[in-house]
Amino acid sequence: MSGKLASLSSKIPNRFTSELLRANDMSSLDTLQRLADVIESRKPANGGDPEKSYVSRLLHKGPDAFLKKIGEEATETVMAAKDVDHGADASKLVYEVADLWFHSMIALAHYGLTPADVIDELARREGLSGLEEKALRKAQHRELTGD
Amino acid sequence: MSGKLASLSSKIPNRFTSELLRANDMSSLDTLQRLADVIESRKPANGGDPEKSYVSRLLHKGPDAFLKKIGEEATETVMAAKDVDHGADASKLVYEVADLWFHSMIALAHYGLTPADVIDELARREGLSGLEEKALRKAQHRELTGD
Amino acid sequence: MSGKLASLSSKIPNRFTSELLRANDMSSLDTLQRLADVIESRKPANGGDPEKSYVSRLLHKGPDAFLKKIGEEATETVMAAKDVDHGADASKLVYEVADLWFHSMIALAHYGLTPADVIDELARREGLSGLEEKALRKAQHRELTGD
Amino acid sequence: MSGKLASLSSKIPNRFTSELLRANDMSSLDTLQRLADVIESRKPANGGDPEKSYVSRLLHKGPDAFLKKIGEEATETVMAAKDVDHGADASKLVYEVADLWFHSMIALAHYGLTPADVIDELARREGLSGLEEKALRKAQHRELTGD
Repeated sequence: MSGKLASLSSKIPNRFTSELLRANDMSSLDTLQRLADVIESRKPANGGDPEKSYVSRLLHKGPDAFLKKIGEEATETVMAAKDVDHGADASKLVYEVADLWFHSMIALAHYGLTPADVIDELARREGLSGLEEKALRKAQHRELTGD
Repeated sequence: MSGKLASLSSKIPNRFTSELLRANDMSSLDTLQRLADVIESRKPANGGDPEKSYVSRLLHKGPDAFLKKIGEEATETVMAAKDVDHGADASKLVYEVADLWFHSMIALAHYGLTPADVIDELARREGLSGLEEKALRKAQHRELTGD
Repeated sequence: MSGKLASLSSKIPNRFTSELLRANDMSSLDTLQRLADVIESRKPANGGDPEKSYVSRLLHKGPDAFLKKIGEEATETVMAAKDVDHGADASKLVYEVADLWFHSMIALAHYGLTPADVIDELARREGLSGLEEKALRKAQHRELTGD
Repeated sequence: MSGKLASLSSKIPNRFTSELLRANDMSSLDTLQRLADVIESRKPANGGDPEKSYVSRLLHKGPDAFLKKIGEEATETVMAAKDVDHGADASKLVYEVADLWFHSMIALAHYGLTPADVIDELARREGLSGLEEKALRKAQHRELTGD
């Protein structure tokens, strides 16, 4: 629970606290989770129709189809960023990162994973100090040696 | 506000509702936003020290440094998925997608963007029908023609 | 000059040797160069027709079109290699590397470069000792530090 | 045989012609093949020492190590091309394509393949007409449908 939410919830009668916490947990990933639910419903096994849905079609074609898209969207993200460097509107980058995350979520769904799993992994990195220290030590060595 | 939260908040005395809503807004992106805040604080212009922080160091080195990581992490995501196809634990894929999203967020921060911008873009895709119809039409044509 | 060519040229009268050497230099890139010539002829400025030629079409659409293909083909190369790891026929990898090099050559052509430029750069690496020593020192440091 | 070589060989006594042709075939891949030979000699099984050679080290670490580099070098190729678009020297692109092909060759070596296999595959594409017709038909459909 974040500091702000903690101080807020202390003002709320106790009987609401656990529901609030659950509400918070429920809502913290809301857009990503609802999008994941849509993707889940598009699985052919769940009635998704490859003739009617782009997501069903990728899931029906199998891993190579959507994994290839991850490489493609990563490249488009890099190109969009380079264009923003040279004056293009930043919205172009937002669009490509959304495409990259979206296709990542199709892969997650195929393997029975959810964006919540990724967010949990990222939450562990929020307290970056330990991780940063390790990553930095590596990066400094690399720089020292001319990488 | 999601349906579940709406029904929850109806049980909470009025004077708490607006605070709860604010809490919800605050928390809806919470992990991603807090991670974005940490990244923001690591910008050299905000006092981040490239000698002490991995993120500061990437931001200090400039776009090529973190964009290259996006290509690298996309490749590692694809390799991890292939390994899961052949029996590896799915946690490996979660870890690589988190790395991919994390480095995307460093790029977003550099260009003055936030994960909320990406989530907003994804929210527009939540009602996938229109988008899916267009994407599907493209993909079907591609398949027809042997792609 | 390769050992075999050296022994061959020793059988050829002296006055032919320098021409033979030049012939060898000329021919060393033959397939790549002929393919580059075809790509060159496909440039819209050289009469290539985007309605009739795939290469003309990519060149006509501009850098993002063929650069995106480089990212896509690199991903397909990685996936093919992973498949070979798990029993697929190695010809799949050959096919994807050919696609990767082919689209690299379209990019080279657009920027007025040739495969000979790349081969020259690679020739400098043939005497790998110096380069390897530097690259190794970097890589060892990275490993020491847990990369 | 290229036109230049044909005219050269006409000046050489007949008894040398067939040897010259063989020399030409032998040499047609010379730089790539000699580089492939160096890579082959760096395999740990052939006495390559991961403590002394960058290539040995990548081969010793296994596929993920050099496949990851292919994704990374593809991204660097794309970034270099974007920089050339905005005024950077084209030599930067040559350097990155050489890195991309070099790491592709390490992967080829690991799987018992050679650059000659790739060149053979590319030679089949030299007569591009059939391939181009198919690729074009696909690409036109994609464009029609907004890709």
